Amino acid sequence: MSENIVWHRHSVEKNDRSVQKSQKPCVLWFTGLSGAGKSTVASLVESLLVANGRHTYLLDGDNIRHGLCKDLGFTDVDRVENIRRIGEVSKLFVDAGVITLCAFISPFAKDRQVVRSLLNSGEFIEIFCDASLSECEKRDPKGLYKKARQGVIKNFTGIDSAYEKPIDPEVHLDCTNETPEELAMQVVNYLVDKQYLEQMPAVQKFA
Amino acid sequence: MSENIVWHRHSVEKNDRSVQKSQKPCVLWFTGLSGAGKSTVASLVESLLVANGRHTYLLDGDNIRHGLCKDLGFTDVDRVENIRRIGEVSKLFVDAGVITLCAFISPFAKDRQVVRSLLNSGEFIEIFCDASLSECEKRDPKGLYKKARQGVIKNFTGIDSAYEKPIDPEVHLDCTNETPEELAMQVVNYLVDKQYLEQMPAVQKFA
Repeated sequence: MSENIVWHRHSVEKNDRSVQKSQKPCVLWFTGLSGAGKSTVASLVESLLVANGRHTYLLDGDNIRHGLCKDLGFTDVDRVENIRRIGEVSKLFVDAGVITLCAFISPFAKDRQVVRSLLNSGEFIEIFCDASLSECEKRDPKGLYKKARQGVIKNFTGIDSAYEKPIDPEVHLDCTNETPEELAMQVVNYLVDKQYLEQMPAVQKFA
Repeated sequence: MSENIVWHRHSVEKNDRSVQKSQKPCVLWFTGLSGAGKSTVASLVESLLVANGRHTYLLDGDNIRHGLCKDLGFTDVDRVENIRRIGEVSKLFVDAGVITLCAFISPFAKDRQVVRSLLNSGEFIEIFCDASLSECEKRDPKGLYKKARQGVIKNFTGIDSAYEKPIDPEVHLDCTNETPEELAMQVVNYLVDKQYLEQMPAVQKFA
């Protein structure tokens, strides 16, 4: 065995990973109506963080619904289990030291609370992507509102299923009137203000 | 908006994360009997990698069975679903650019094959922690073999449930005769040889 190797018999802990990555890991939980801009803003936040050397991962319908949760449908029971699993996976990513972005409609306050309760204080950052139903329906980027109005899609949030607005989110984004870039900066500024990004020389607070 | 900010409208991709972390992400899948040393060797491999600046995460019974898979028992159906979910989570971590260590008995070849099939070629590294049943039973670190022999635990791998040995694992460790440190070095050497660790100045091949 080489003399140069120092063996650490202790496990690598969450704090080791956090220090290694120069950041305080957390979950950025984007909630809001379909079409509000959750994925767009989350993706911009992620790009900015990665461009500045941070370590991130984005969970959304694309990589969850076709994989981990492909056995689940859209019944109430399955929706609850879907968010529970996403919460558990987010917790693993936070344990891994990663800033974890989650973009899901997640319409029910109770389910969001379940995820919050899995994490330590300060690790769950609820980001309300607030856009009016009429605005989201006008955008309708995936044509889903049209199908919901036609009755082709049932239990669609905002049409025939409720969206419970966050009462006291950590970050409240005005997704009707501001650009995705402006909104992404608000999120990053929150992280800077709250010192989630230690030793991040390339990012200053934005004016 | 600051003039200094470059907005990348493209999503952050797996390759971006891999380059950022100077490593080729993969799953190190440790399989073997209870007591063979899977977790011990995996933990040593992780410590060595992290000490050298790599980005890793270790999935094992401790962080999976009490969280993501706490709804699952030990029936055949639940065991299959347990490994499927671990495979899907491993895939997310690999997508995140992380070297992902998994330490699970995973006795059935078919289930291990399911995980391999979720990943791209070269991303699944099967590590057979090979120790004889008599050796594992002699160690019995958790007293589980004793309970299985008494019939207190049913369907225990090696006693009244089969362990299907890997036929052609990427790494075959002699966990009966070699020390955990020697075995961990064999795993790291495999990663060096196969160029999973790009630009890793602090680690040379071990003699």
